[in-house]
Amino acid sequence: MKATGDLSRVAVVLVRTSHPGNIGSAARAMKTMGLRDLVLVAPRHFPHPEAEALAAGAADLLARARVVATLEEALADRALAVGFSARRRDLSHPVAEWRDLAPSVGALAGPLALVFGNETSGLTNDELLRCARLATIATNPEYGSLNLAAAVQVACYELALASRAFAPSPGGAGEPATGEDLEALHARLRSLLVASGFIDPENPGRYDERLRRLASRANLEREEVRLIHGILEALSRRAGSGG
Amino acid sequence: MKATGDLSRVAVVLVRTSHPGNIGSAARAMKTMGLRDLVLVAPRHFPHPEAEALAAGAADLLARARVVATLEEALADRALAVGFSARRRDLSHPVAEWRDLAPSVGALAGPLALVFGNETSGLTNDELLRCARLATIATNPEYGSLNLAAAVQVACYELALASRAFAPSPGGAGEPATGEDLEALHARLRSLLVASGFIDPENPGRYDERLRRLASRANLEREEVRLIHGILEALSRRAGSGG
Repeated sequence: MKATGDLSRVAVVLVRTSHPGNIGSAARAMKTMGLRDLVLVAPRHFPHPEAEALAAGAADLLARARVVATLEEALADRALAVGFSARRRDLSHPVAEWRDLAPSVGALAGPLALVFGNETSGLTNDELLRCARLATIATNPEYGSLNLAAAVQVACYELALASRAFAPSPGGAGEPATGEDLEALHARLRSLLVASGFIDPENPGRYDERLRRLASRANLEREEVRLIHGILEALSRRAGSGG
Repeated sequence: MKATGDLSRVAVVLVRTSHPGNIGSAARAMKTMGLRDLVLVAPRHFPHPEAEALAAGAADLLARARVVATLEEALADRALAVGFSARRRDLSHPVAEWRDLAPSVGALAGPLALVFGNETSGLTNDELLRCARLATIATNPEYGSLNLAAAVQVACYELALASRAFAPSPGGAGEPATGEDLEALHARLRSLLVASGFIDPENPGRYDERLRRLASRANLEREEVRLIHGILEALSRRAGSGG
């Protein structure tokens, strides 16, 4: 099983793509973000010279792309599929904004699929039902028409950053906090808040869910977790000394 | 002066673009993220039918695009320009990762420019020197060749989310905290930490910078700021009661 952070475990599945150029551009977009596995469900034209031309340095992804007849086949070996959809009101299960969803998806270690529909019609309801999660990319409410390859680019970029797949930026981010770091922090804060009466342990409410959501969005670094521990330590010391 | 969050104050400047199709795709990418002002510095071909074709529903941006001869002209009315560059080691001023830089750029209220160079050669050193900030988009270290329009797409997406330019997602994020909310939170936390001895007010160190960086990355909501105030209140009460 591939480690999280290694995006080679993530496939992009393009369903019923009309324009071969979009397949090539999507392959290039994937490779810039460290993804390699392209699966094409019933493409209208493939292979095609326009796909090759637009793939630029990512022609290797086209050469190893898998072509299948149905989405079911494409997802047979996947632990989780995320279906991408424009914002719609007629869907039965909720569509999450990809920025919010990507950290939890990126944290899964199994083989994943990001699924994109046809340029004009998107994914059908039946196809969406085969995806355990539905995601939308935040766009201008007055014009949300992302090109297919542009959607693939943003989706892969977001997943790569949420997974911290790349080395930190020059002078930028530090070592990411681990799940263990975060659990220890949550546990310490919780025990302080129970002691202070802020949380009723019998009836904790949504406190935990809200703080976890905040923490996952912040992509905390280890150094920052240490800083927060230091702050809590200082505030507890103050409490111990009588304020 | 436009409010932050309204991305109509942000121009995209494309310098010496070779392929008119990329101009059209960049216009579409901009419009999906709520940007409208396109400035073209010495484009090789413009106007051009291929630009129109690839702009799709964003042809209005091409119609109102401004064509100028030099980057200096393009930036004359801008308060801040961000030059985008692939990661390079030979630049004099530091290149920040765009995800880290976008929140502070998005918080500026004046007219901004995002500047992108030629498809093959990027921005020249002289052009980069005209940009107050340099940014890079995180990519696969083994293949970082973003298509021009793809770079524009990711850059605008990141700025739109950092600026909270769009309504929150369905069932997703709440109302964003304002600068005033955050200042009040920072001030309260700081005074508690000074009182507890964690911060020496004569010599505060990098504490403030680190917490501000964390907070800006977390894109705090007002509700979350209230939650953190509640936590600090509870911990102070505990202190007041002697622990």
